[in-house]
Amino acid sequence: MTAPSKYLDALIREFSKLPGIGPKSASRLAFHILKLREDETEKLAASIIDLRKNIRSCSICGGISDSDICAVCQSDSRDRSLLCVVQEQKDAIIIENTGGYSGLYHILHGVLSPLDGIGPEDLNITSLLQRCREGIVREVIIATNPTVEGDATALYIARHIGDIKAGPEVMRIAHGLPLGSDLEFADSATLLRSIQARTKVR
Amino acid sequence: MTAPSKYLDALIREFSKLPGIGPKSASRLAFHILKLREDETEKLAASIIDLRKNIRSCSICGGISDSDICAVCQSDSRDRSLLCVVQEQKDAIIIENTGGYSGLYHILHGVLSPLDGIGPEDLNITSLLQRCREGIVREVIIATNPTVEGDATALYIARHIGDIKAGPEVMRIAHGLPLGSDLEFADSATLLRSIQARTKVR
Repeated sequence: MTAPSKYLDALIREFSKLPGIGPKSASRLAFHILKLREDETEKLAASIIDLRKNIRSCSICGGISDSDICAVCQSDSRDRSLLCVVQEQKDAIIIENTGGYSGLYHILHGVLSPLDGIGPEDLNITSLLQRCREGIVREVIIATNPTVEGDATALYIARHIGDIKAGPEVMRIAHGLPLGSDLEFADSATLLRSIQARTKVR
Repeated sequence: MTAPSKYLDALIREFSKLPGIGPKSASRLAFHILKLREDETEKLAASIIDLRKNIRSCSICGGISDSDICAVCQSDSRDRSLLCVVQEQKDAIIIENTGGYSGLYHILHGVLSPLDGIGPEDLNITSLLQRCREGIVREVIIATNPTVEGDATALYIARHIGDIKAGPEVMRIAHGLPLGSDLEFADSATLLRSIQARTKVR
């Protein structure tokens, strides 16, 4: 088997390392790059380098940021009494994309997982408790995933925030049937949760 | 909606332009880039730029190449009497990956398509006929896709090669049921072709 170009091979190999990109997708992407104008490929390459070089961690929420404090934490239009705790940066972006949340965020960078050796000191929890002690935040919404680890992390955080004198109220995002879904296709754990967490019809 | 980083946004936008990459994949890729070491991101970026900058067209087969003549056309171990005609570079790579073809290639860069205004002069056909006239090639295998345009292109090429005095024999790759498939799931056009093109059991 003879490869027509070592540059093509090199790029296919690089693309194949990315998550969700198999050899066929990598090859398709590389052929697409061949068809781009040179300035377009330079823009793509520069974006990759720029992101890795310029990204920082927000000193307030722990999320990614272009400066010392991220755009959300800096914004004047956010409700500073409301704080949403998420596992990862991407979760904050997903919530942000709903367009219906106006509070601030706190990124944990993971969940408690004793089996993987991840304890509270490995997560961004100390600064969360500090934020809760400052008296500005009145409500904390814990939006970790509805998994064993996510629930345990939510409980751990709730207990420690509960220890703060006159601290914020701690809430958990609701879990139940997704909108537009069918009872027939719901797993029994979700269905049971949706019955236990039933809400009053208004 | 507030974005946490304009660099992240820029890279997600760039990734989204690639074929088969939607907003969710683009975002996942960008977050992956965030986790890479700086030298890894530089390698990826350099591969993109290097490919676009250094790639050339082989002056013999019309395929992509790092030099004036591609590795396949240069190779001493190839059967120079056998020539496989393909629509696109990627088709040559797919055939090369089977590991069972030892001849040379000729890349057409498309197929005849009067509706799209693509005529013989838009394809790499003149140099194909020139190669056939040199007396070295004894057999041409046309491996354009089994579509209306691919078949028409095969016919057009076969007729012109047939006009060459003492020119090579022209063959078409076989079309029929894929190996391991089931008659039940074959479309009737393929099934009919497999009956018409039946071969003797040896």
